[in-house]
Amino acid sequence: MKISKFIMLSVFFMTLTTSSHAETAVMPEVGFVLNTLLFLMGGFLVMWMAAGFCMLESGLVTSKSVSVICAKNIGLYSIAGIMFWAVGYNLAYAIPEGGFIGNFSYWTDASKLETGYSDSSDWFFQMVFCATTASIVSGTMAERVKLWPFFLFTAMLTGIIYPIQMGWQWGGGWLAAIGFSDFAGSTLVHSCGGAAALAGVILLGPRLGRFKNGSIKPMAPFAASSIPLATLGVFILWLGWFGFNGGSQLALGTLDDSISVSKIFINTNLAACGGVMANAAFTRLAYGRTDVIHMLNGAIAGLVAITAEPLTPTPFAAILIGGVGGLIAVFGTQLLYKFKIDDVVGAIPAHLFAGIWGTLAVPITNSEAVFSSQLIGIISINLFVFVVSFIIWFIMKQTIGIRLSAKAEKLGTDKSEVGVIAYAIRD
Amino acid sequence: MKISKFIMLSVFFMTLTTSSHAETAVMPEVGFVLNTLLFLMGGFLVMWMAAGFCMLESGLVTSKSVSVICAKNIGLYSIAGIMFWAVGYNLAYAIPEGGFIGNFSYWTDASKLETGYSDSSDWFFQMVFCATTASIVSGTMAERVKLWPFFLFTAMLTGIIYPIQMGWQWGGGWLAAIGFSDFAGSTLVHSCGGAAALAGVILLGPRLGRFKNGSIKPMAPFAASSIPLATLGVFILWLGWFGFNGGSQLALGTLDDSISVSKIFINTNLAACGGVMANAAFTRLAYGRTDVIHMLNGAIAGLVAITAEPLTPTPFAAILIGGVGGLIAVFGTQLLYKFKIDDVVGAIPAHLFAGIWGTLAVPITNSEAVFSSQLIGIISINLFVFVVSFIIWFIMKQTIGIRLSAKAEKLGTDKSEVGVIAYAIRD
Amino acid sequence: MKISKFIMLSVFFMTLTTSSHAETAVMPEVGFVLNTLLFLMGGFLVMWMAAGFCMLESGLVTSKSVSVICAKNIGLYSIAGIMFWAVGYNLAYAIPEGGFIGNFSYWTDASKLETGYSDSSDWFFQMVFCATTASIVSGTMAERVKLWPFFLFTAMLTGIIYPIQMGWQWGGGWLAAIGFSDFAGSTLVHSCGGAAALAGVILLGPRLGRFKNGSIKPMAPFAASSIPLATLGVFILWLGWFGFNGGSQLALGTLDDSISVSKIFINTNLAACGGVMANAAFTRLAYGRTDVIHMLNGAIAGLVAITAEPLTPTPFAAILIGGVGGLIAVFGTQLLYKFKIDDVVGAIPAHLFAGIWGTLAVPITNSEAVFSSQLIGIISINLFVFVVSFIIWFIMKQTIGIRLSAKAEKLGTDKSEVGVIAYAIRD
Repeated sequence: MKISKFIMLSVFFMTLTTSSHAETAVMPEVGFVLNTLLFLMGGFLVMWMAAGFCMLESGLVTSKSVSVICAKNIGLYSIAGIMFWAVGYNLAYAIPEGGFIGNFSYWTDASKLETGYSDSSDWFFQMVFCATTASIVSGTMAERVKLWPFFLFTAMLTGIIYPIQMGWQWGGGWLAAIGFSDFAGSTLVHSCGGAAALAGVILLGPRLGRFKNGSIKPMAPFAASSIPLATLGVFILWLGWFGFNGGSQLALGTLDDSISVSKIFINTNLAACGGVMANAAFTRLAYGRTDVIHMLNGAIAGLVAITAEPLTPTPFAAILIGGVGGLIAVFGTQLLYKFKIDDVVGAIPAHLFAGIWGTLAVPITNSEAVFSSQLIGIISINLFVFVVSFIIWFIMKQTIGIRLSAKAEKLGTDKSEVGVIAYAIRD
Repeated sequence: MKISKFIMLSVFFMTLTTSSHAETAVMPEVGFVLNTLLFLMGGFLVMWMAAGFCMLESGLVTSKSVSVICAKNIGLYSIAGIMFWAVGYNLAYAIPEGGFIGNFSYWTDASKLETGYSDSSDWFFQMVFCATTASIVSGTMAERVKLWPFFLFTAMLTGIIYPIQMGWQWGGGWLAAIGFSDFAGSTLVHSCGGAAALAGVILLGPRLGRFKNGSIKPMAPFAASSIPLATLGVFILWLGWFGFNGGSQLALGTLDDSISVSKIFINTNLAACGGVMANAAFTRLAYGRTDVIHMLNGAIAGLVAITAEPLTPTPFAAILIGGVGGLIAVFGTQLLYKFKIDDVVGAIPAHLFAGIWGTLAVPITNSEAVFSSQLIGIISINLFVFVVSFIIWFIMKQTIGIRLSAKAEKLGTDKSEVGVIAYAIRD
Repeated sequence: MKISKFIMLSVFFMTLTTSSHAETAVMPEVGFVLNTLLFLMGGFLVMWMAAGFCMLESGLVTSKSVSVICAKNIGLYSIAGIMFWAVGYNLAYAIPEGGFIGNFSYWTDASKLETGYSDSSDWFFQMVFCATTASIVSGTMAERVKLWPFFLFTAMLTGIIYPIQMGWQWGGGWLAAIGFSDFAGSTLVHSCGGAAALAGVILLGPRLGRFKNGSIKPMAPFAASSIPLATLGVFILWLGWFGFNGGSQLALGTLDDSISVSKIFINTNLAACGGVMANAAFTRLAYGRTDVIHMLNGAIAGLVAITAEPLTPTPFAAILIGGVGGLIAVFGTQLLYKFKIDDVVGAIPAHLFAGIWGTLAVPITNSEAVFSSQLIGIISINLFVFVVSFIIWFIMKQTIGIRLSAKAEKLGTDKSEVGVIAYAIRD
């Protein structure tokens, strides 16, 4: 046993002495398995966010429009999966270096040890990000959009729009080449979803009676179908975000990577804490009441804000970045009121506006990012997504129609679209 | 440092050159930990499915029968845990090779390195499968079955029936010997639960007033207590299924295993997507309305269908297998109507029928499976489970009774059985 | 290839022969990653418990007090995160060996290989325990406590009270020195939360009309806003508890650790099963009805009871420990009635009383624990937490006030505190 003990000690010291070059110390296959595991774990946590969006939206809409929210959310996640396999992935990742677009071909697994992780685990992880983008659109347009036009747009968004702009950065396209920095997708995912929702909601118009005689009918506070379901939705999103940001480290096979993933967990968590408490304090002081719905949106906005850079901030910086994100969600809601844009669940402030803030804030803590590149990335992506989405919604509006009849809207989408009322509660 | 660098490089190349024999490349102990981790992670995800079934059933029954659903689901999961420890595990796994039954003894941990994983992690993973089987029975018989006879049956199912037939295959019994193939349990778990439910519901009879004057009173669409809770249930099941199918690879300690688990995640996901969208499109075209409840059941049926073979199909094949599963759930529901079988949540179509389809479909993508063995497995298991379950329900019906009085049923199970109404909502 | 094969075999046999000294067999860096992964996974599971408490409480209170429960729960989790970073962690862990208190400084990451895990992952895991403690307080005082005084107390609890007493044991303070044994916190977390809640509720007083003319107005059975949400909450807690207890092994990087974590999973699960079924059977036999709410609390009490020692019991012992815990929750509820203490969700019986039982029971299965040390730990911690909490609540009562006006309470906390009704359900 002497020789084996010698080897064992050698391996031990070897590891100690090479810990600064952590990549070489772990056996490649173990690293492969651990990286793959991160994608799978991160992936199922982000998949779970689809349920979070569904609960958040179900809780915040009126009780006449909940079943359709359920149909939309389970449908959009399904469409995203199929489209991202059929075209999306290769549109994003088969992009030439510094280029603008990949190619139209369906995805296949070609795993090998050298890649460092299983191809399928990577696809799964990227797919759930694509689905998240689609989830963001759903809530904004609730209570009056037609179901199948929404599904059609979802197919375009998840198959074409999201993948193209995502490839610009994560596929190694032109934005990556100019040094844009968006760790887990404040802009690539959240602003993208928000911009697509904004385009749609402008063409769709507000709910009937939402803006009457110049004043806002306060729908949410006394009309939300279930505050606990909305809160559950936010807790689900918060949980899923550990996968969203933590998994975006893209590796767990080394000491350094495991430390990074851990730091990301903390910053992600504290940014959400900051968003919640900033909104709780602000609404208490400004309006005299602690607005629970703003607390919920504050959590999301805080999470969105930290998503562009969850690794380099100190915990304190993370709290501040999230806190500012939370307040942006409050003011953003006021801004939309001013323009008479009726965003049912506040997705545009929380995802689009807070996403812009988070992306702009990257250079504050990450010295490798520069403000000008951040600005170029934000403008180009939001413009691209908004314009293309606007065109698609516009064509649909002129042809198949995107809005329910006034009669159907008054009856409620649940009865008119899916024929199932959401809560049949009788004592 | 020269010698240690030499060893390091040796280890590195050794790994590269042996990656086709991946089992030998990872150090046994690391492999042991990773395999154990897969069981634990898969296990807690499948445990979570118990909550999914509970929410799905709570959402789909009428609001007078929800508290009992909750009592049944938390009770059945508890009974399953105790029974699978007391008798179930060894009835299944202490089976002689090619044999029919193990022995009656409680389970103990005897972990050792050579096994390749912790015994306890394996028990935990197998136990939650057992509990899943029991969950399936609960929904079908809702709104009129007595609580404690249901618990008694659950004890028999989880302690005796499920373990015996499961041992035939996963314990290395006679079905394994003839080459039956059921990767994660389309037949062993889902059809088993469905067959037990069918036996029970035939003896139990339909809810009062369900089939009146030859026509069906459309209970679900305007009587489901909470569509968002039902949808949440399906999202929970979907999430849990990554553990169900992914964990059934039974190992994560090698490159090959991690690639397989990843492929299983994708196919599991895409089959559900196929099930959802097949049902959405079909009900829209055939009935003029997108039936949200059928979309939910389509997801489950798609998941059940891919469970027999989630590894070998291409992504496209997975979508098709799941899509067919989804449609089978729709037609299966019609079939049950015809026979005046009142399956409250549609568990028999989604689990029994789609499970048969999935098991029959294995040879399409897995060249090692043969159709005849699949047929033998399906028939023998379903027949065994149905007959034994029928006998148990029949004996209980003749002795302690299995159905509530008409008066109690009209009052609602919540008031008559547990004395707690489910939703006391007042403005 | 001969030499590399030789090394490979050496490594293989070396591992086999050293499996009894498992700590040395895994390469340090792989162990580091696996330990970190356990903290992250355990951490996100325990984070998820915050949602569980929120759902449990939302479901059990009357429908006029649900939105505030949501605000409280998302707020307390946020406050816990910020406070545990700002002061809590170092109050607990910068304690001198055998000492009483650490220092007031915010936490920073200083990860290095020798520690064996990432500092941030450890902080995250410890933080969610701190948050759990705060969650326990929320439900007891529901329906009449003021929101911001509750938040203020939460800041004191999570920043000061919890960390100080926790450091006595897990920080290596005086309780650790005398041999107190509390694996995952039956006393340190659950009794701590329960004692803080008890102090608060005594000063707060019962809900209006709760104890009338010497008899108890049976509020819960016909007043709980949503039994399925409460049940969902318990399933979430149950799931999260695998992280709570399993993660408290604090390491996954060796064969022995992975076996221990697996055993902990099983015992945690079976204790809950015991708690559920003990309560189901007892309430059926004693009261003639299977009380679903007691089944839910039985699960929690079973989980709390096993938390002090989830590793050493046999599965059968775990069932018994949990079962006794469940019954204690039932009798504890009666006891509180007798003293006219109005604990809305039964948190004091399930967390404080069952926590005492679990901590006392440690010496039964763990030969290293002694009864006298257990008693000292239980008394000192509960006394410390109760007294300090009482003082804080008392000062707040005399200054800012802790209870809503009778008018506001009758109107319901949702309208008076956050201005958002919880369920606006209209057909």
